[in-house]
Amino acid sequence: MGSGILDRLQRKERVAAIIKILSDNPNKVFSLGYFSEFFGSARSTLSEDIVLAKKVVEYLGCGKIETISGAAGGVKYIPGLSDINKDAFLKELCVTLSSPDRIIKGGYIYMNDIVFSPEISSKVGLILASYFIEKNVDYVITVETKGIPIALMTARALNKPLVIARREVGVTEGSSVSINYVTGSSKKIQRMSLGKRAITKGSRCIFIDDFMKAGGTANGIIELLKEFECELVGIGVLVEGASDKKLVSDYISLLTLETVDEENGIIKIYPTKND
Amino acid sequence: MGSGILDRLQRKERVAAIIKILSDNPNKVFSLGYFSEFFGSARSTLSEDIVLAKKVVEYLGCGKIETISGAAGGVKYIPGLSDINKDAFLKELCVTLSSPDRIIKGGYIYMNDIVFSPEISSKVGLILASYFIEKNVDYVITVETKGIPIALMTARALNKPLVIARREVGVTEGSSVSINYVTGSSKKIQRMSLGKRAITKGSRCIFIDDFMKAGGTANGIIELLKEFECELVGIGVLVEGASDKKLVSDYISLLTLETVDEENGIIKIYPTKND
Repeated sequence: MGSGILDRLQRKERVAAIIKILSDNPNKVFSLGYFSEFFGSARSTLSEDIVLAKKVVEYLGCGKIETISGAAGGVKYIPGLSDINKDAFLKELCVTLSSPDRIIKGGYIYMNDIVFSPEISSKVGLILASYFIEKNVDYVITVETKGIPIALMTARALNKPLVIARREVGVTEGSSVSINYVTGSSKKIQRMSLGKRAITKGSRCIFIDDFMKAGGTANGIIELLKEFECELVGIGVLVEGASDKKLVSDYISLLTLETVDEENGIIKIYPTKND
Repeated sequence: MGSGILDRLQRKERVAAIIKILSDNPNKVFSLGYFSEFFGSARSTLSEDIVLAKKVVEYLGCGKIETISGAAGGVKYIPGLSDINKDAFLKELCVTLSSPDRIIKGGYIYMNDIVFSPEISSKVGLILASYFIEKNVDYVITVETKGIPIALMTARALNKPLVIARREVGVTEGSSVSINYVTGSSKKIQRMSLGKRAITKGSRCIFIDDFMKAGGTANGIIELLKEFECELVGIGVLVEGASDKKLVSDYISLLTLETVDEENGIIKIYPTKND
C-alpha cells in the first residue's frame, strides 16, 4: 500500500506501479477512483497513465489491459501470451517432451517435472485461461493430483476459485458427494468425490487437467457436477493422446502426443491446431 | 518480446516494462545486457531505470529488486510482502477462518476454499518463501493433496521446482521409492512415494504444507529424502495445531489454531509469533 514516508510517485514510477498492481491481480477490476486515492493523483492524470500501461503490455506481448466503462467500471489486466510468444513456448515444450529418456514403460512419457514447474505451469495456465475468458466461468475444477498446478494457474489467470475433486474422501472436508465413472481407455471403474461445500449450485465450471486419453475423467467430472446442479462449460488439457477415440467432443488441448515408440525410443508430440 | 512495429519505449514506459518482466520471473537474474538489447537502450540509461523500479517496489511494499554485481551479475526481483501488508493479510485470514460454520465434525476446520484460492495461496506462498530465501533451496516438496497450491506458489516465489510425494504410486512416474511413516497424532501407518527421477541426489529441500498437527508427515518427508540422499533444510506450513506435541522442532507456521470448540461453535486461530 502507499506509504506516507515516500514521496508521491511521478508518472515514470506510477505507470510501473499500476502495472504491478494490475499484474498481481489478473482479471480484477480496479476503479480509477481506487488508483486516484492510492496515488493521490487526479483521475485525468491516471487515465493518461493507463494509456501508457496499455502500450507497455502490448509491447511485451503479455495480454492486455481493458477499460470497462460505466458505474462499475475501471481497468483490469487480462494476462495472456501473444501468438508469437505462445507458439515459441509450445514448440520449446515439444522439444523438451520429445527427449527419449522421458519414455516410461507402458507407453507413457514422464511429465512431472514439466507440469509441476512453477514457470511452465503458470504459462500453460495463462494460455488455457485465454480460451475460456468469455465463458463466464465460476470455478476451475480438476482431479487430484498431476493437473493441480496447471489448474491452479488457470484459475489464477481467470481470477476464479479452484476446486479439486478427490480420489478418496478426506475427513477435513465435511460431507461429500462421490460418483463412480469408467475410464475411457482402460475401462476401469474409478471413483471421485467432492465436498458438498466446494461449489455453489448452478455454477459454470471448466475442467483443467494435464493429460487426456479418451476423456473418461472429463465425463466423470460432468457426472459429478450434475450432482451439484452445475454445468461444465469447457475442458482444457495440456496434452491429449492422439490414438484414443474421444468420449468428449468439445475440448482444448495445447499439445498432441502422437507416438511413444518404446522400442526405437521415439516420442512424437506437437502443438495442437485448435482452430 | 520487443516488437519492431512499436516505437522504442520511453523511460515512463520502460520502468513499467522492467517491473513486469522481473515480476513475472521472481528470483531470476536478468543482466543489464539483456535489458539493453531488449529495449535498445544504453546500460547507463537502464541503470537509472532500475533505480526507479526499486523505488516503485519499495513504495508498494511488495518485495525488493536486488542488484547482483560481478560478471554473472544483473538484477532480480525478490517478491514479498511488507510487514504491514503481511500482518493485515494474516489477520484477515484469521477472521475468515474463525467463522463457526467452518467447524467440521471431529474438531477440524474447513480450509479448502482458502488453500485452493489462487489469490490467497499466492500470498501465502510469497510469505512462506521469504523465510527460506537464504537457505539455498533446490526443491520445494509437498505431499498430495491440499498443500499443493501453497507449495506451488512458494516454489514460484523462490523460482525452484516443485516436487510432489504421492500416497499411491502412479504408472506415469517410472520407478519410485516408497517409505512408511507413523502419523504423529493418530499413530497410523501411512505410505508416501516419490519417483526416482523427481530429485537429484544431494539436493536441499524445503517441505511446505497446509496444516501441521504433530509433524508426522514432516518426519516422513525427512525419511523419504534420506532415500534420495537429500537434506530437508526447512519446513513451512500455513496452520499449525497448538494442542499437539511436535515431533519436529524447526519449522515456520503462519497461523496457530488454538481451539476448535464444536459444542459452542468457537474457533480460535491467530497469527503465529515466529521470532
